[in-house]
Amino acid sequence: QLCPLYHGPLFSTDPCTVGESWKPWPRTRRTVRGCLECVKRLLFRVGDDWYFLFFLGVIMALISFAMDFTVSRLLNAHKWLYRELGDHLLLKYLSWTMYPIALSAFSTGFSQSITPHSGGSGIPELKTILTGVMLEEYLAIKNFGAKVVGLTCTLACGSTVFLGKVGPFVHLSSMIAAYLGKIRTSVSGEYENKTKQNEMLVAAAAVGVATVFGAPISGVLFSIEVMSSHFAVRDYWRGFFSATCGAFMFRLLSVFSSEQETITALFKTSFKIDFPFDLPETFFFMALGTGVGAGLLCAVLSFCQRWRLGYVRRNSLTAKLLAADKPIYSSLVALLLASITFPPSLGHFMASRLSMKEHLTSLFDNQTWGILSQNASLARPLQVDPKNLWLEWWEPRITIYGSLALFLVMKFWMLILATTMPMPAGYFMPIFVYGAAIGRLVGEGVALLFPHGIQSDGSVNTITPGGYALAGAAAFSGSVTHTLSTALLAFEMTGQIAHILPVTLAVLVANAIAQKFQPSFYDGTIIVKKLPYLPRIRSRHIGSYSVTTRQFMNPHFAVLAKGAGFEEILRVVTSTDDLEYPIVESAESLILVGMVQRATLVRYLQTHDEATPGEKEPEEKSHSNGTLGDDCTIEPITLQLSPWTSLHQAHNLFELLRQGRGTETSRSGVGRKGWGRQLKAAIEDLANPKTLT
Amino acid sequence: QLCPLYHGPLFSTDPCTVGESWKPWPRTRRTVRGCLECVKRLLFRVGDDWYFLFFLGVIMALISFAMDFTVSRLLNAHKWLYRELGDHLLLKYLSWTMYPIALSAFSTGFSQSITPHSGGSGIPELKTILTGVMLEEYLAIKNFGAKVVGLTCTLACGSTVFLGKVGPFVHLSSMIAAYLGKIRTSVSGEYENKTKQNEMLVAAAAVGVATVFGAPISGVLFSIEVMSSHFAVRDYWRGFFSATCGAFMFRLLSVFSSEQETITALFKTSFKIDFPFDLPETFFFMALGTGVGAGLLCAVLSFCQRWRLGYVRRNSLTAKLLAADKPIYSSLVALLLASITFPPSLGHFMASRLSMKEHLTSLFDNQTWGILSQNASLARPLQVDPKNLWLEWWEPRITIYGSLALFLVMKFWMLILATTMPMPAGYFMPIFVYGAAIGRLVGEGVALLFPHGIQSDGSVNTITPGGYALAGAAAFSGSVTHTLSTALLAFEMTGQIAHILPVTLAVLVANAIAQKFQPSFYDGTIIVKKLPYLPRIRSRHIGSYSVTTRQFMNPHFAVLAKGAGFEEILRVVTSTDDLEYPIVESAESLILVGMVQRATLVRYLQTHDEATPGEKEPEEKSHSNGTLGDDCTIEPITLQLSPWTSLHQAHNLFELLRQGRGTETSRSGVGRKGWGRQLKAAIEDLANPKTLT
Repeated sequence: QLCPLYHGPLFSTDPCTVGESWKPWPRTRRTVRGCLECVKRLLFRVGDDWYFLFFLGVIMALISFAMDFTVSRLLNAHKWLYRELGDHLLLKYLSWTMYPIALSAFSTGFSQSITPHSGGSGIPELKTILTGVMLEEYLAIKNFGAKVVGLTCTLACGSTVFLGKVGPFVHLSSMIAAYLGKIRTSVSGEYENKTKQNEMLVAAAAVGVATVFGAPISGVLFSIEVMSSHFAVRDYWRGFFSATCGAFMFRLLSVFSSEQETITALFKTSFKIDFPFDLPETFFFMALGTGVGAGLLCAVLSFCQRWRLGYVRRNSLTAKLLAADKPIYSSLVALLLASITFPPSLGHFMASRLSMKEHLTSLFDNQTWGILSQNASLARPLQVDPKNLWLEWWEPRITIYGSLALFLVMKFWMLILATTMPMPAGYFMPIFVYGAAIGRLVGEGVALLFPHGIQSDGSVNTITPGGYALAGAAAFSGSVTHTLSTALLAFEMTGQIAHILPVTLAVLVANAIAQKFQPSFYDGTIIVKKLPYLPRIRSRHIGSYSVTTRQFMNPHFAVLAKGAGFEEILRVVTSTDDLEYPIVESAESLILVGMVQRATLVRYLQTHDEATPGEKEPEEKSHSNGTLGDDCTIEPITLQLSPWTSLHQAHNLFELLRQGRGTETSRSGVGRKGWGRQLKAAIEDLANPKTLT
Repeated sequence: QLCPLYHGPLFSTDPCTVGESWKPWPRTRRTVRGCLECVKRLLFRVGDDWYFLFFLGVIMALISFAMDFTVSRLLNAHKWLYRELGDHLLLKYLSWTMYPIALSAFSTGFSQSITPHSGGSGIPELKTILTGVMLEEYLAIKNFGAKVVGLTCTLACGSTVFLGKVGPFVHLSSMIAAYLGKIRTSVSGEYENKTKQNEMLVAAAAVGVATVFGAPISGVLFSIEVMSSHFAVRDYWRGFFSATCGAFMFRLLSVFSSEQETITALFKTSFKIDFPFDLPETFFFMALGTGVGAGLLCAVLSFCQRWRLGYVRRNSLTAKLLAADKPIYSSLVALLLASITFPPSLGHFMASRLSMKEHLTSLFDNQTWGILSQNASLARPLQVDPKNLWLEWWEPRITIYGSLALFLVMKFWMLILATTMPMPAGYFMPIFVYGAAIGRLVGEGVALLFPHGIQSDGSVNTITPGGYALAGAAAFSGSVTHTLSTALLAFEMTGQIAHILPVTLAVLVANAIAQKFQPSFYDGTIIVKKLPYLPRIRSRHIGSYSVTTRQFMNPHFAVLAKGAGFEEILRVVTSTDDLEYPIVESAESLILVGMVQRATLVRYLQTHDEATPGEKEPEEKSHSNGTLGDDCTIEPITLQLSPWTSLHQAHNLFELLRQGRGTETSRSGVGRKGWGRQLKAAIEDLANPKTLT
């Protein structure tokens, strides 16, 4: 029998199908067709966008894999070139520096020539879009090519320029999501809905992160923490679905291309699982998370980064270069960075021959470098040895501790300098590697202090500095971006979860400190770029819960009655400079009808004549003399706050509805007008606990 | 110098401290004191409830550990008793059955005698509370003792009764959170805020899950998915902090009690990490997730469970027992369950000598039982051998496949029967173990089909059935509870993450199927118990986005004017049966002023006299004849919807503000009234896509 979901006729009486009745088994075929119909109905019943989410994941995985493939070929070509040039120092220097200079200049020039939006990370802008501000052109598909090509060149500069791909991938993913949304609306002929679009963008952010690291769960969580302050569980599920498809496809491609034997983690580690760490070591993990390791340093980093971004713009030379000749600025920076990392010079002491992936793999090594370097008379190989990556960090004159420390000191300002380059680039990965280096240094230090493990009573449980590197990477990147999910990301990337509790503690401590001192890296960029932004309510003082809208919303503003004529409108428009005006039923009742744009009023004033009092207008002219209610489009208002809505509720509503305005109606009709601005000011007031009663 | 956050006077001029000036180093001491002040200020600045969150985590960890300790002692005592009784079959039978009978009867009697709220899981009720409905007494601290003692007895029944502790722990945790909240308000003397209380409850749910499994991240995610449909990232952070403290403390205690050498996972596994699974196996993992393994079965399970809960109440005998003699009902059920699991009878074929923890450990075994059982002439030991738990599953007459299948068939209805027992018990853990058994059976089947691995071209990569058990557990529990975070929970519990992608895929597939057919286990219980509940908008058809409030909200309802007198109120109260009435400024303007409770109006009618027209009231009597606006408390309204608010926005707002009502104001003042009921009806309409235009 047919399944109960099949609503069509059981036996078709359509004359077209009667013509086919000569074919054998008409009944069976019809039954089969009916069942297929029913399966289709069942599949499509969940909603019509699971297919889009699936395709979004798969497309991003393909792009990510293709980019990784191209970048590794380009990096190998650079390595080959550098090796083949033999011992001639000048040629070696030229080959080392020219490659990143050319690539970064091309990346900057190409992407900037197509569209100025393609530079930088993309996460701050996307965050702004998700708060409800539509940044024109930012999600246009024409940015896509510029960003893909530019990012490939940036990544091909390797560890010299030291930039990553997370941020641009989030941007790319959201561009594709917006494009897919446009395709859907054009195919189905339905009106594009903003809520639906936002749902897609949230999923796209998750896919972007997941396809870079092959980490579905932390991809979703990271994008939630970075992008939004409120989240629907439904959106989380959609992101999860899309991110899992993407991550699975991404890892599958690496198996098909014979890179890997089966699906495993991106940076596979081999820590001891039976005894990953000793209990007292938790203290060191937390110390790593505290001040020294992550909190303070990242605060300084984020501060410096913003300061320098401002400085570069204020300084006349760099400002001129950035305004007119962006490729020249990029190549100058690349020249400086490449000269420092040149292996026969300072690069020798900071493992500059390693790529970023090799950096991370070497830092997560399960051996203790301090012990390895004592053992034998080692010599650094002429080429990077993939089996002994740690040898790149080993330099007898300054020991591995010196190398790590020098790496940290130099990369600190080099990274800040690199972030000023106006080309497509992500900043998460370098921060992650930097944190891993901090952790490794601490871990090697602990291993040096306790060479036979902490509890030296019986079985020798030596210390694994790789675990500290993991904690350092998670804590540092977490505190810079103000997220906790980096802990999970570190585990998904390394394919083991043995250190979960100490790493989580380190991330928590680091975040607690960092959130106190600085806005996150992305919020910092939003502030520097002056994008619209609703601050978080930082104070959770119990008094802040009793603040209601009437205490901070603006009670003084112009109101227009629905029956207002030319003169009234002219007076209001010339005396105030609001962008929107609330419209009320009449000046007495003050019942809110809707909002009208300033632009609409200006158009009204341009198309209407002033009705001179005393002069009787002829009947046919009355059209051009209608009231505001007749001739202007009044936009409906979705939400009205009452004077008793609390600040916290209002904040939640603004964030949830992703809109920047709200109007409060009190007992006497329209009472106060509250824009995002007022709310923002009220929140900033709250940061100072003294203003609370 | 003092830090800039120190606002106090630099040098105290207080006469009290002058008296101390004979002590040495007054200046240094003052500086130190100032610095301490400043540190304190810094620490307390984040908000004053981090300490509560910390204590919540620690208290719950202590309770969880103490309970585990007691339960394991009680189970050992039972084992000892059973062993010492020798070969006398009747005595063995009595000792096997009397123990769970006595414990379950005591658990039921004790908890029900103190409070009827302490039975069952607690998650459905907490979910209802978090949607804004205050269930009286449910969070009262007096339930605490009943629940703790009752749960300990339930768990001590072991695998005979086969119940867990997740749900009750969520309830316990929220009781403590509510109690801590009351302490804070009584200490600080501040008014207790509902938003603040909800924030604490959300964190408490996370702590409850995290302290049971020692899994902080998945604890937070699971509680979010189960409890709410919207969450603030802030709440997620708070939950994360509290859950990490709890999980860390919980694992720390097991180290201190010398159970473990260091902090590791609760159910440590030793799967192959280098080659956890072959690529084609992903197909089997997904097949496991699909229909057979999880989706359909769980739908049937959840359906049966609800049906039987209804049946038990309808059946006259069981209904009478449940109404009057709950302990007798419990002991009868326990007798039946214990008789079936008696080891010399049917229990021999379904590994009934294992405790629930041992069940899980044995199912996650990294060996292949099919291969082990072929090898040698094995004999089941007289006592459970902790090193070879799998031997309990091995029975030559029906092989391990038969044992697993019998376990699944019998436990299916035994579990449903056990859920009807009115004592404190959680249902997550049994479902998790059941899923693991399904997965193990599938895994052993795959291993039997491909004894030398799937790609038998070179290196032998045999199949690990334990990985399937992991996927089965995650997929089954995920589909029953409609959550995705069970995938992460499985990894956090087992301390490895190698199977992440196939397990996530299996959970996704299982959830997609289960969510289509049935509400989740917890929603099902809410429906059966007839608790108030706002359904999810299941249809994401693009047309559903254009439905606005005026299309579904009720336009016909009684409105009272502020100046209404006795007669008007009497007429409205007698002609309608609403629980609340909107109050407007006047019948003409219809400006909404607030809401008034029906009870308030009834009290008004009781205290006021009917003003007979034509009869002049003396001046002093005018008090008892005031209008509604004068004598009734009008509650302010926090939110008004406009007619253009979309269904999705309205749904989000209702969920976010955790309130069950909304009033829409249209152009002409109060237009329609929308209660949760209307919204619910509108959502149920949407489930049928035909109603959409």
